[in-house]
Amino acid sequence: MNFSMIRYILGCVLKIEAAFMLIPCLTALIYREKDGFIYLAVAIGSAFIGQIMSLRKPKHNVFYLKEGCVATSLSWIIMSLFGSLPFIFTGAIPSFTDAMFETVSGFTTTGASILPEVESLSHCNIMWRSFTHWIGGMGVLVFLLAIIPMSGGSHINLMRAESPGPSVGKLVPKIKHTARILYLIYLGMTILQAILLIIGKMPVFEAINTAVATAGTGGFGIKNDSFASYSPYLQWVTTIFMILFGVNFNVYYLILLRKFKKAFFVEEVRYYFIMIFAATGIITLNLIETSTNAFKALTDASFQVASLVSSTGFASADFDQWSGTCRTVLMLIMFVGACAGSTGGGIKVSRFVVMIKTVIKELHSYIHPKSVKKIKLEGKEVEHEVVRSINVYFMTFFILFALSVFLLSFDGHDLVTNFTATLATINNIGPGLELVGPTQNFSFFSDFSKYVLIFNMLAGRLELFPLLLLFHPGTWKGILRRRTRSITDKHS
Amino acid sequence: MNFSMIRYILGCVLKIEAAFMLIPCLTALIYREKDGFIYLAVAIGSAFIGQIMSLRKPKHNVFYLKEGCVATSLSWIIMSLFGSLPFIFTGAIPSFTDAMFETVSGFTTTGASILPEVESLSHCNIMWRSFTHWIGGMGVLVFLLAIIPMSGGSHINLMRAESPGPSVGKLVPKIKHTARILYLIYLGMTILQAILLIIGKMPVFEAINTAVATAGTGGFGIKNDSFASYSPYLQWVTTIFMILFGVNFNVYYLILLRKFKKAFFVEEVRYYFIMIFAATGIITLNLIETSTNAFKALTDASFQVASLVSSTGFASADFDQWSGTCRTVLMLIMFVGACAGSTGGGIKVSRFVVMIKTVIKELHSYIHPKSVKKIKLEGKEVEHEVVRSINVYFMTFFILFALSVFLLSFDGHDLVTNFTATLATINNIGPGLELVGPTQNFSFFSDFSKYVLIFNMLAGRLELFPLLLLFHPGTWKGILRRRTRSITDKHS
Repeated sequence: MNFSMIRYILGCVLKIEAAFMLIPCLTALIYREKDGFIYLAVAIGSAFIGQIMSLRKPKHNVFYLKEGCVATSLSWIIMSLFGSLPFIFTGAIPSFTDAMFETVSGFTTTGASILPEVESLSHCNIMWRSFTHWIGGMGVLVFLLAIIPMSGGSHINLMRAESPGPSVGKLVPKIKHTARILYLIYLGMTILQAILLIIGKMPVFEAINTAVATAGTGGFGIKNDSFASYSPYLQWVTTIFMILFGVNFNVYYLILLRKFKKAFFVEEVRYYFIMIFAATGIITLNLIETSTNAFKALTDASFQVASLVSSTGFASADFDQWSGTCRTVLMLIMFVGACAGSTGGGIKVSRFVVMIKTVIKELHSYIHPKSVKKIKLEGKEVEHEVVRSINVYFMTFFILFALSVFLLSFDGHDLVTNFTATLATINNIGPGLELVGPTQNFSFFSDFSKYVLIFNMLAGRLELFPLLLLFHPGTWKGILRRRTRSITDKHS
Repeated sequence: MNFSMIRYILGCVLKIEAAFMLIPCLTALIYREKDGFIYLAVAIGSAFIGQIMSLRKPKHNVFYLKEGCVATSLSWIIMSLFGSLPFIFTGAIPSFTDAMFETVSGFTTTGASILPEVESLSHCNIMWRSFTHWIGGMGVLVFLLAIIPMSGGSHINLMRAESPGPSVGKLVPKIKHTARILYLIYLGMTILQAILLIIGKMPVFEAINTAVATAGTGGFGIKNDSFASYSPYLQWVTTIFMILFGVNFNVYYLILLRKFKKAFFVEEVRYYFIMIFAATGIITLNLIETSTNAFKALTDASFQVASLVSSTGFASADFDQWSGTCRTVLMLIMFVGACAGSTGGGIKVSRFVVMIKTVIKELHSYIHPKSVKKIKLEGKEVEHEVVRSINVYFMTFFILFALSVFLLSFDGHDLVTNFTATLATINNIGPGLELVGPTQNFSFFSDFSKYVLIFNMLAGRLELFPLLLLFHPGTWKGILRRRTRSITDKHS
């Protein structure tokens, strides 16, 4: 394993994080908050450690999939560790476990919080909390790819480990350029949303926070009631942007290239919209009876559907109080999630499309045992290897899911709480139902359960395998052998 | 499609059912109950219709997988239709939907009941109700295979559609003999259990009912409190037999052949026992605090674990009142179920073993991308085709599961009820949690929901695909074409 390369990458990640921390520093400067000094100190510390780690350039910059996965997982862990320090030192979240939970929840764009209320936090803390969503949404390594040089196929191994979805598409031949284009689209859409929110009379500070949290499909709110007190205009702007950030970014690139027809016919995106319309329709019909008017029902339904399908997790209403049908529909779309190649979480629409097509193909094979029918997606045949890896993904997902529900059960809470807490974390959504409903928070879980949920959030964001690899003894075999050898060398 | 063969098989099934109905007739004779005449009338009617249907022997007795599946699904539906008639005509269950629910629940060995209490039923009704479990446990078509002649590979296509588990093993070269051996083992074990229960001072009538319900891993009780009022001895005998009927029957055949070593090393069975011990251990530890003594805790825990893992569904305690951990563990083992090739339901241990091995193999491939590692089960390589079909099975299972939870949600009950009602029916278990807990029944569901649950029970018992095929237009293409042709012929 190329350990020096991993060390180098981790160093770079820390330096990038230090740079991003200047944003809360700036916020503190504007609002004249003392907490800013703590952010500055942590930023300097991170930059210093990062600089030491990345001082010596690795001899070989070749990189295999295994190393890509390990580097990615470790990057996210180290990023969360350093990212949680300001919360601890400013006293906003004194407990290490809680601070780690909140930071991981931020970076993984989950948006599940242990804070019972957020309005008393300092502006710079709020800004950093929201901004972790933006950093995590596109992925810090994708950012890294855009700026540091790496040889041959190494880029793709890093990108594959971090990007959401079953297969990684390159927009342009060079990964480096792909990463830059993605970040530019991301930044552009974030700014557009912020402007539209400001036009709707949202204060600038709130608009920036909301825009970055929406862009990353994160969901940390800046008000204790999340989105309930905002005007319908602001809710609709956010609804639309939540849906848009759940769309495969390739579509935006196609639009930039003026390939509108091609952009419009992306199969995954069409199913994504069909699902959103169907869910919104069912829920609106269900809400009409109890709502003041049909428009209010539609506004509430579409906001919640957009929020949960895109795995953002904002709430404009306490959907935990809605009817059984609504809660079930919301739970089902929470399983599916957004499109691959978006900032959204979940199992991803394309995986479900392939899954349903696989089942139909199987039925077909009972009727015509000799026919060879291939599964198609986006008009192209899906390679056998991709179908297989999607199958394995589902299996792994359900094993981790069951394990998490089991481990949480030791806290003694009800099944729906444990089930939806697992779902909300592993799919990076945020709120669930019952005790983890939209008006609740995650603080009541034991420390042990919080670490289970932290694991879920990281596993979900990194699409399971990169994180699981850290627990496979084979990954660390090289180190052990190396160490044993050096010990033997000493003794001989 | 070989329709005349399907007609012939359905006719035979009806005749067999008529023969089995003589058992409640005999019961009525002993207890001098008038209901016996109704059973006799239905038996004569079934035999008559069956005789008409099977009068003309089909020209070709060749049979493909598609026909095997269709014949199996239709057999189970027609069997349930005729089986429900006595309940309707005796007035025990006046509603058609309810009678159908109860009968399907019986034949599929689910054991979910719509009856609020059973002790007031006549003896012959109780006997028929319990006996449907015994018929359904091994499968009526397996019985058919043991007695009617069929050519070449046709047997295996019927057996494949009805037997539980990912792959069908032939014990001996001739399927016919395999079926006979299986039925003999089944009968022998049922009689043994009945004798052991009678030794424990259970009345003979109750012992026979309990033994046939255990053998089929069904779960219809004969007392309103299911098993709570029986002595620990009777509970332990039943615990052991529930576990034994969940074991792959190949093991018993190996034991009959005195191949003890081979019988002992069946991998699936070992994992089955590990799971039972682990679950019992966790639950016993959880119950010890609230139980009168450790033995009582162990008795309750092992009874419930055995009942749910084997998909029987008897209850000796109201496990819905147990702690969150216990309920979660029980729910997880309900997903797994018993061994393939047993009378038990569920996804089956072997499928989970292959699933977990697939995930481990995938992780391994990240570390050694070039190594080709095959999945092994029972010391043999699992064929790629089997792994694929297990994957597809899981996908289909989860799609049907989600669909069922969604459809049930329109009744407005809580999530845990809908979730566990789906689980308890699709895995042929019987009781679930909350409103469908062990002290409750399924009568409160709407008729629509009851049909959803009936579908689940049949789909689960027939391992999904045979039943789904009935809904695939391709299956009926032949008929439509044939009809259109005959109409065109007339007109020309």
